[in-house]
Amino acid sequence: MAERNATLETAIETLTTQKKYPALRDVLVTMNPADIAAMFGDLEERTLPLLFRLLPKDIAAETFAELDPELQELLIRGFSDSELKEVVDELYVDDAVDLVEEMPANVVKRILKQADAETRKLINDILKYPEDSAGSIMTTEFIDLRPTMTVADAIKNIRRNGSDSETINTCYVTDEGKHLIGIVSIRAILLAEEDAVLNDIMEDNVISVSTLADQEEATAMISKYNFTVMPVVDQEDRLVGIITVDDAMDVMEDEATEDIEIMGGTTPVDTAYLRTSVFQFWRARIPWLMLLMIGATFTGMILDHYENALARLTVLTMFIPMLMDTGGNSGSQCSVTVIRALSLGDIEFSDILSVIWKEIRVAVLCGVSLAAVSFLKIMLIDRMLLGNDDISLLVALTVCVTMALVVLVAKLIGCTLPMLADKLGLDPAVMSSPFITTIVDALSLLIYFAIASSLLGT
Amino acid sequence: MAERNATLETAIETLTTQKKYPALRDVLVTMNPADIAAMFGDLEERTLPLLFRLLPKDIAAETFAELDPELQELLIRGFSDSELKEVVDELYVDDAVDLVEEMPANVVKRILKQADAETRKLINDILKYPEDSAGSIMTTEFIDLRPTMTVADAIKNIRRNGSDSETINTCYVTDEGKHLIGIVSIRAILLAEEDAVLNDIMEDNVISVSTLADQEEATAMISKYNFTVMPVVDQEDRLVGIITVDDAMDVMEDEATEDIEIMGGTTPVDTAYLRTSVFQFWRARIPWLMLLMIGATFTGMILDHYENALARLTVLTMFIPMLMDTGGNSGSQCSVTVIRALSLGDIEFSDILSVIWKEIRVAVLCGVSLAAVSFLKIMLIDRMLLGNDDISLLVALTVCVTMALVVLVAKLIGCTLPMLADKLGLDPAVMSSPFITTIVDALSLLIYFAIASSLLGT
Repeated sequence: MAERNATLETAIETLTTQKKYPALRDVLVTMNPADIAAMFGDLEERTLPLLFRLLPKDIAAETFAELDPELQELLIRGFSDSELKEVVDELYVDDAVDLVEEMPANVVKRILKQADAETRKLINDILKYPEDSAGSIMTTEFIDLRPTMTVADAIKNIRRNGSDSETINTCYVTDEGKHLIGIVSIRAILLAEEDAVLNDIMEDNVISVSTLADQEEATAMISKYNFTVMPVVDQEDRLVGIITVDDAMDVMEDEATEDIEIMGGTTPVDTAYLRTSVFQFWRARIPWLMLLMIGATFTGMILDHYENALARLTVLTMFIPMLMDTGGNSGSQCSVTVIRALSLGDIEFSDILSVIWKEIRVAVLCGVSLAAVSFLKIMLIDRMLLGNDDISLLVALTVCVTMALVVLVAKLIGCTLPMLADKLGLDPAVMSSPFITTIVDALSLLIYFAIASSLLGT
Repeated sequence: MAERNATLETAIETLTTQKKYPALRDVLVTMNPADIAAMFGDLEERTLPLLFRLLPKDIAAETFAELDPELQELLIRGFSDSELKEVVDELYVDDAVDLVEEMPANVVKRILKQADAETRKLINDILKYPEDSAGSIMTTEFIDLRPTMTVADAIKNIRRNGSDSETINTCYVTDEGKHLIGIVSIRAILLAEEDAVLNDIMEDNVISVSTLADQEEATAMISKYNFTVMPVVDQEDRLVGIITVDDAMDVMEDEATEDIEIMGGTTPVDTAYLRTSVFQFWRARIPWLMLLMIGATFTGMILDHYENALARLTVLTMFIPMLMDTGGNSGSQCSVTVIRALSLGDIEFSDILSVIWKEIRVAVLCGVSLAAVSFLKIMLIDRMLLGNDDISLLVALTVCVTMALVVLVAKLIGCTLPMLADKLGLDPAVMSSPFITTIVDALSLLIYFAIASSLLGT
């Protein structure tokens, strides 16, 4: 696949150099807009406007919508007003909105000036919805039918308006007040008799989402109900737009990326890796590192506090990394599982007691297994094989009891903090490995020294 | 939403107790199958078969496909042979395959016995494809047209076969040998003249996926090209099935969950949190904890080795957690970003040098910032404010130089290990926080003691 594209790119570059425009055009029209956009990203910037102008109008608009913002801006700056108008007219409203959101102010002004009055109004309406709301990602081109229409009327209407609509696979039935009262699939229309009335064949238990709902909620509903398109209604239940499944997939992917990055202790960056600047990465990462570094100094202070105990029984020091790491890992495991379950809707805050009870049992199983293995390892390898005589049975016991307790505490913290964060309206993903580890590290040491002092009297 | 469902569930439970079956049926048919399935999961098991039998045939099959495997098994065990046949006949082949994959052998035998000969053959064919391949998730119900058909013929064909097909939104044009030669959307058919020939209106630059391709690849293509359905072809380019976007969304969600769980250091569990047993969680988590615990003992051995140096200058101990944690966090940040970029296809192995160069620069920025802040913190807070006289300028310098170097090493390891894992055909997600942290911990200590010995002569 990648190989074929590379060859194609070489061919296109050669044709461009040789100025064989008709041949170039013939090659380009065989390609999917997504592939053309990807190829444009790899080409020299100065050939871009030239190649773009070779594309037929509809392919040009689709390709434009798929381009990275930098390339969109580059093209627009080279467009004449009439070229810009042509592209903006062909774009679906949701893509036009995305464009307006990404471009600098002076470019936005030109775009809005070239858009016709109705499109400009639609773009401005959508821009008013809160970021990440269902309203902000919807498009307004859908097929809108009346309940009294016959199937024949409906087909006529679809033939008339279908080419401007983002999808005709699902059509919407609204009353005079624009209220959404039914849904009818193109399948139902085609399979029905020509004189059947929409009112009789439409599905009237309509599932819709509010313009103000979170885009993640809208996406989850599309996935849950296996929809290819979801109607969006305003506060008065009037149909104002639709969200198509391809946009829902993009949201899903972005949200997963965001979760993963936050769980890794970094602010999400919404540009592709290779296009993200060093400074952007620094800005995304440094606040977390600073915060966590300060957190870790508390662990250092605990260690410092017990310096004398350690100095008296230095053998205890060598088990610190194992105990802290195991604690951190146990907590992380538990927190990622809980965070993902929260984000998939498998659990919610009211399940906290069953989650805690389950994690306690898992922690006991894990803690006992780990304690047993580390006991054997300490006695057989460290003491007998490596001949470390400082390790007494009591030292081994101290380590193992600490191990079991640390795992228990880590799992409890790992499962409760994300759920509490969620309850408080924070992103539970923040309560993942880095924070859990920092907290558990400090607690592990406290537990260790408490048990050491009661068992060994240090 | 949750509230509405709770009230509905109470109503349904009351109606069930009062044996008001006609009313129950009226309520159930207003619901979406996905919601019915979710509600069935919360109801008492003994009322399940009763409610299920109230559903009309098509809703029953769709609801059945959405149920958890345990409930599917429960229902099947209560079904008569003819009831089972009715459900199996209504299921789409991909759902039937999922069912057969989940059920125990004796139930599978019954299912296959009740399926008609053709369905049985289709199920068996799909079962032969490797797990996680495009073939294993496809379905075989699609609209298959000839290039010589007119639009009127095509509509007639769709009317005849449309009710059995999983989607009619995209139709496929094949030659006599079943080779896929074109794609025609229902929109193109409806917008064309009745006597137009498919050959002239179909899109003949067809993008398809091979049966043996990874399901993740198929899903990424559906997302990239904004498809609602993707044709699947065999090794001879014959059309054998389609993958619909709703299944692609499920795959995408499952793959993200899998990545997130592996990155958190736990084997993915494919059941919902509350349905996963304590033992399953233990089995998913304990191997990682054991492995990482053993890894951490090396860090312990390093600490043990430098015990004497530490005993001479105990103040060094208090900075160990801060240095190790910052190292681990720096490496984690970098590894999650790289892992996600790999899985989104933003970078590949050939980009390794630009990734390393970028991470070196980010590491220098982060390292210098952290070193500067920690230097100030150590000198101003620890030394002056808290009056710790053991902290000399050289000690502070040792910590800061170590800090900068640890961040650099951590970022290098955090970006290269996932890329190497990917190159070796392993899942890069494995090279995430837990492993990176364990490796970086040990290296941090080595760097710390090396610098301490050269600057402080310990």
